[in-house]
Amino acid sequence: MSDPLDRLYATILARRGGDAATSYVAKATAKGRRKLAEKFGEEALETVIAAVAQDRAALLSEAADATFHLLLLLADAGITLDDLRAELERREGVSGIAEKAARPE
Amino acid sequence: MSDPLDRLYATILARRGGDAATSYVAKATAKGRRKLAEKFGEEALETVIAAVAQDRAALLSEAADATFHLLLLLADAGITLDDLRAELERREGVSGIAEKAARPE
Amino acid sequence: MSDPLDRLYATILARRGGDAATSYVAKATAKGRRKLAEKFGEEALETVIAAVAQDRAALLSEAADATFHLLLLLADAGITLDDLRAELERREGVSGIAEKAARPE
Amino acid sequence: MSDPLDRLYATILARRGGDAATSYVAKATAKGRRKLAEKFGEEALETVIAAVAQDRAALLSEAADATFHLLLLLADAGITLDDLRAELERREGVSGIAEKAARPE
Repeated sequence: MSDPLDRLYATILARRGGDAATSYVAKATAKGRRKLAEKFGEEALETVIAAVAQDRAALLSEAADATFHLLLLLADAGITLDDLRAELERREGVSGIAEKAARPE
Repeated sequence: MSDPLDRLYATILARRGGDAATSYVAKATAKGRRKLAEKFGEEALETVIAAVAQDRAALLSEAADATFHLLLLLADAGITLDDLRAELERREGVSGIAEKAARPE
Repeated sequence: MSDPLDRLYATILARRGGDAATSYVAKATAKGRRKLAEKFGEEALETVIAAVAQDRAALLSEAADATFHLLLLLADAGITLDDLRAELERREGVSGIAEKAARPE
Repeated sequence: MSDPLDRLYATILARRGGDAATSYVAKATAKGRRKLAEKFGEEALETVIAAVAQDRAALLSEAADATFHLLLLLADAGITLDDLRAELERREGVSGIAEKAARPE
C-alpha cells in the first residue's frame, strides 16, 4: 500500500473507534456526522479563500486538510477511497461536456 | 498509471488548454481561478448537504464532483496530485492530536 | 412598513405559495428546504469570494443575494424577520467577548 | 434608532477600532478582511447545516450569527446597512423571475 492516500484512509479506519483523548480521528468521529460534515465544509471554505487570495502555500495546506476531512466523512458513511475512485472512473469515459449535459439541472 | 486519480489528473492537464466548446475542463479553466474556486466551493457545499441529509448515494456523487473540481483548482495553481500526497504524507508521522495542537489557532 | 427588509420579507410571504412560472420566490420555495439552504450557501460563498477578492461592487451585490436567500430560507422554516431581530437583540446586552466565551466550543 | 439591526450596525461601527481584549468586534476586525470573510462563511455553513437538519432553534441562532458576521464584513468594506437596503430595494420593482433572467449566467 504505497499510495499515501490509501495509507491515510487505512489509518482513519484503524483509529475511528480509538481513544478520543489521543487520536484526532477518534475525537472528530465521535462528534458525529453533522460535525464531520461541518469540519469538511470549513476546510473547503479555507481552500476556496486561499485560492482566491492567490496564496499557493495556503492552498496546498488547506487542500490537504479538506482531503483529510473528506476521507473522515466518507469513512463515517461507509464509503471507501476505492468507491470514490470507481465513481470517478465511471465518469471518465464520458466526455466532460457530455457528462455535464447529462446532469439534471 | 493505474490509479483513476492519476489518470483523472493527467486528463485535466491534457485538456486544460483545449477547446472550451468540447471540453468541460477547458471551459471551466478558461473562466479563471476565482470561478474554479467558486465551483469547488459549491461542490463541497453539496457534499456537506448530502452528508447531513444522510443521503449516501448523493454523498458519493458529490464527493466525486468535489474531488474533480479540487484537482481542477490545484492544476490551475501548478499543484500536482503528488504534491498533495506529499503534503498528506508529511503530516502522517505526526499524530492527529499533536498536529492540531501544533497549529496556530 | 418603510423598511425595505420588511417589505422584502412581506413580499416573500405573499409569493411563497404563488405560481412558480412567474415568481422566483414560488419557484425556489417549491424546490424544498434542502435546495433553499443550498442556494443560500452558494450566495454566501460568492459573498466570501467577493470580499477576499476586494471587489466592493460584487460584495454589495452578493450580500444582497445572500440576504434575500436567507430570508427565503427563514420564511420556509416559519422564522420571521422580527424573530431574527429579537435573537440579535437578546445578545446585544452581552458584550461580544463574553458572548463568545459563553458558547460551548 | 429602534431597529435592532441598525443598533447592531452602529455598535459594530463604534467598536471596530476599540480594544481587542474586551471587544469581539474589535478582535475580529483586527484579523483583517480575509478572516472576517472566512468567519461569515463558517456561520453561513452552520446555517445551511441547521436548515438541512430541520433544526429550527439552531437555524435561528446560526442565522443571527451569520447576519452579525455579514454586518462585520460589510462594515469593514465601508458598506452600510442602508447600502444593503438600497440594493435590495433597487431590485424590488423587478419581478423575481425577470431579475434572474436578466442576470448574466
